[in-house]
Amino acid sequence: MSLRAALTRQLDPKARSRPGLSALNRCIVALILASTALVVLETEPAVSAGREGLLRAVELGFALLFALEYAARVWCAGEDPRYRGMIGRLRWAMTPMALVDLLALASLTAPLAEGNGVVLRLLRLARVLRLARLGRFSIAGEALSEALRARRYELAVTSAAALVLLLLSSTLLYLVESGVQPDAFGSIPRAMWWSVATLTTVGYGDIYPVTALGRVLAAATAVVGIGLIAMPTGILAAAFSDTLQRRRDAGEPPRE
Amino acid sequence: MSLRAALTRQLDPKARSRPGLSALNRCIVALILASTALVVLETEPAVSAGREGLLRAVELGFALLFALEYAARVWCAGEDPRYRGMIGRLRWAMTPMALVDLLALASLTAPLAEGNGVVLRLLRLARVLRLARLGRFSIAGEALSEALRARRYELAVTSAAALVLLLLSSTLLYLVESGVQPDAFGSIPRAMWWSVATLTTVGYGDIYPVTALGRVLAAATAVVGIGLIAMPTGILAAAFSDTLQRRRDAGEPPRE
Amino acid sequence: MSLRAALTRQLDPKARSRPGLSALNRCIVALILASTALVVLETEPAVSAGREGLLRAVELGFALLFALEYAARVWCAGEDPRYRGMIGRLRWAMTPMALVDLLALASLTAPLAEGNGVVLRLLRLARVLRLARLGRFSIAGEALSEALRARRYELAVTSAAALVLLLLSSTLLYLVESGVQPDAFGSIPRAMWWSVATLTTVGYGDIYPVTALGRVLAAATAVVGIGLIAMPTGILAAAFSDTLQRRRDAGEPPRE
Amino acid sequence: MSLRAALTRQLDPKARSRPGLSALNRCIVALILASTALVVLETEPAVSAGREGLLRAVELGFALLFALEYAARVWCAGEDPRYRGMIGRLRWAMTPMALVDLLALASLTAPLAEGNGVVLRLLRLARVLRLARLGRFSIAGEALSEALRARRYELAVTSAAALVLLLLSSTLLYLVESGVQPDAFGSIPRAMWWSVATLTTVGYGDIYPVTALGRVLAAATAVVGIGLIAMPTGILAAAFSDTLQRRRDAGEPPRE
Repeated sequence: MSLRAALTRQLDPKARSRPGLSALNRCIVALILASTALVVLETEPAVSAGREGLLRAVELGFALLFALEYAARVWCAGEDPRYRGMIGRLRWAMTPMALVDLLALASLTAPLAEGNGVVLRLLRLARVLRLARLGRFSIAGEALSEALRARRYELAVTSAAALVLLLLSSTLLYLVESGVQPDAFGSIPRAMWWSVATLTTVGYGDIYPVTALGRVLAAATAVVGIGLIAMPTGILAAAFSDTLQRRRDAGEPPRE
Repeated sequence: MSLRAALTRQLDPKARSRPGLSALNRCIVALILASTALVVLETEPAVSAGREGLLRAVELGFALLFALEYAARVWCAGEDPRYRGMIGRLRWAMTPMALVDLLALASLTAPLAEGNGVVLRLLRLARVLRLARLGRFSIAGEALSEALRARRYELAVTSAAALVLLLLSSTLLYLVESGVQPDAFGSIPRAMWWSVATLTTVGYGDIYPVTALGRVLAAATAVVGIGLIAMPTGILAAAFSDTLQRRRDAGEPPRE
Repeated sequence: MSLRAALTRQLDPKARSRPGLSALNRCIVALILASTALVVLETEPAVSAGREGLLRAVELGFALLFALEYAARVWCAGEDPRYRGMIGRLRWAMTPMALVDLLALASLTAPLAEGNGVVLRLLRLARVLRLARLGRFSIAGEALSEALRARRYELAVTSAAALVLLLLSSTLLYLVESGVQPDAFGSIPRAMWWSVATLTTVGYGDIYPVTALGRVLAAATAVVGIGLIAMPTGILAAAFSDTLQRRRDAGEPPRE
Repeated sequence: MSLRAALTRQLDPKARSRPGLSALNRCIVALILASTALVVLETEPAVSAGREGLLRAVELGFALLFALEYAARVWCAGEDPRYRGMIGRLRWAMTPMALVDLLALASLTAPLAEGNGVVLRLLRLARVLRLARLGRFSIAGEALSEALRARRYELAVTSAAALVLLLLSSTLLYLVESGVQPDAFGSIPRAMWWSVATLTTVGYGDIYPVTALGRVLAAATAVVGIGLIAMPTGILAAAFSDTLQRRRDAGEPPRE
């Protein structure tokens, strides 16, 4: 086995025969988590004040390590017949996963730039997106997304019903409460802020109806909100159950 | 195939052989969504201030397009043997779906009228109801409503139990807290406002018990609220699972 | 068929051959609902002020009708061989359901008494309990309670785990926050009020942690709260699904 | 049967032939619950003030009873061939369950010590942990943990997705709201406090977005929070259903 093939087996979780992460990929996951934690924590003044130099140095270290990892991925892409040669590597670099990697890599140069504007912040957001790469490490995720896809129509119908209920409850509350609370319920979009908080059962409590009729309608909205949680949960439970059943019927051994 | 048959195939999702929406129906869905968004947004003063003329013109445009659609539906109704001829068309216009269409169409003339009273607002509410027509576009919705119908007795029993719990908890809180907080818990209906918010786990936090006994009872209510969410969810999950199983046993191929 | 047998068929939902409620039982359900709504509404001063005489008269009417119903039930109990004769009737009157009926009947004399003390209020609570009789009207409730009974050990284990988590999170928050907020988190029972509101995802927002460590622990508690909702829901969903499956295997025709 | 074998049958729920708790174990559970309730209640000044001597005496009584129980467990451990003799008993005392028992026992001497520092409080926390021993009394718990273990990969993927959503929503809210509310959304960790409360649908309402864009993002976060509850619930429901099915296929009689 060549060095490139061995490295590919370390980098690509699908190229491995055994389940689980390789030693190298475990290091990379740890690095991604550490660099994300760093970005999150350094936005807090109580953490970053007086340690700017140290944080920049650590970020530079992360940038170097991730650049190395990207180079290794470019090299190993040649193991796949589709991505051989210069043109193949460019085609690989255009795949969505590779683009996220590149964008995350580019964002690491941001701390070297001056200024603290919105552009820099959006680049930092991209750096947080780095975590999205973790998704490809797992095969279990594919079973979940298969179940989600199999029931996408039912979930869409439920979402549409939820949208209608959202519009209905916010319109009713706007009609009933806008006279008493013009700031909180003065327009349908404002009432929708309350309606989303109620239907999802979050219930911030920053605005709430005060008239008797408004409270009756709000209570009905809250009860409907339970159905809004019960419907997708029931659909997903049936979908996961169905996927398990189908795999057993197909002769697949249970994973446990 | 005649022009009317071709148009019917475009308008009626059940007349199509393939699943999904036809090109024309996609346009209509987009139009309904756009006109609903318009109604919702123009209630917000920050959006509509100074743009009244423009908004009226756009609404008139929507009214014309929906009138055209309604005329097409009246014409195509003749494809169905039950709705042939003038009398048949009138019978079609009396079906609930057609009445919603007509009412929504009528509401579009509202912006031309003067005044800003409650009648106009209720007509605007009807316009929001236009979205209800989206429900017929999907066959998945029928599977969901079949599962809901199959378990309607269990759901009714759960709802009745929830109602009893609501009455019980609000009566107990009224007995315990009315002396300390006469405004918030001074009557059972007032305590029910708190009780609904707790049982549905919305929890606005505008009113809450302050005595030790009241808090113990409130904690018990909140725990029961979890069961209130778990029961219908479990019933629906079993119903969806059962529907899938029955369809497979009946020899239907899985949709995916 | 004798008059008593016919009346029994009207009164006892289990004696009927067809599913659903008899005409007489529908009237009784409506009466119970109306009298309960009356009790609930007359606690609200905005409703009862100036209408005391009218409300007393309506309550007297309800009392007469329910006394008549109770007499009919005593008479019809003789259809059951176990409850024949005077002694049998007395034995019937000692069954829990009959006792609830009698207690509810007794509470109807309360408005005639003077005073507005706690005893009267507790009798009024018993009157609200009248609704509990609705439970026996349905056979679907038995299927639900069978599923609940079949999984009582799993639900007990989940409840015990929830109790441990409640104790753990409130003890930790007490240790962390009692110094900063002695009123809100000054003892474990006080912290438990916060902990119940968080674990059940009600979240009133009357008290919440303010220290960094307290917020980290509170976030962990809130995440665990999701599991607290997911566990009983999943157990119930599996239990309902299992009950359906077992009935189909036993050759019972599906109810729909 | 020797006395030690009889006592082992009373102490060890797995050594019993019949399901349920033995008489002795019921007493021990009651004692654990009582002593835990005592620790919890005595932190409340309204309860403990002026009753310090009485509470110390009761705690000493509990300490004696639990020391007796521990001695009995050490003696009975010899029934198991693995834990025979002095060395075997020491090996038994090193099992996690026995260590929790010993730590809980040690914490009972705490009230005799002077001071009221954090160390004492942490020992009291350990005493609350005593409840953890209840877990071993039940066999149903093993079925639950088996189902949890069988789906550990799916639950891990869902948790990872939840973590990404948490980071994404708190970063977006930080970018949008930090200018308007520097105290509440001035850093990503601060925004995460809001984000956890929203994604778990707890919704304290201590901080919430006020800008239009922030509210749109918050509404999206709250809707995603429903999925966050639905996914693990559905996975667990399918896992419990699957476990039941597998046991029936394996010829096990249904427990009910």
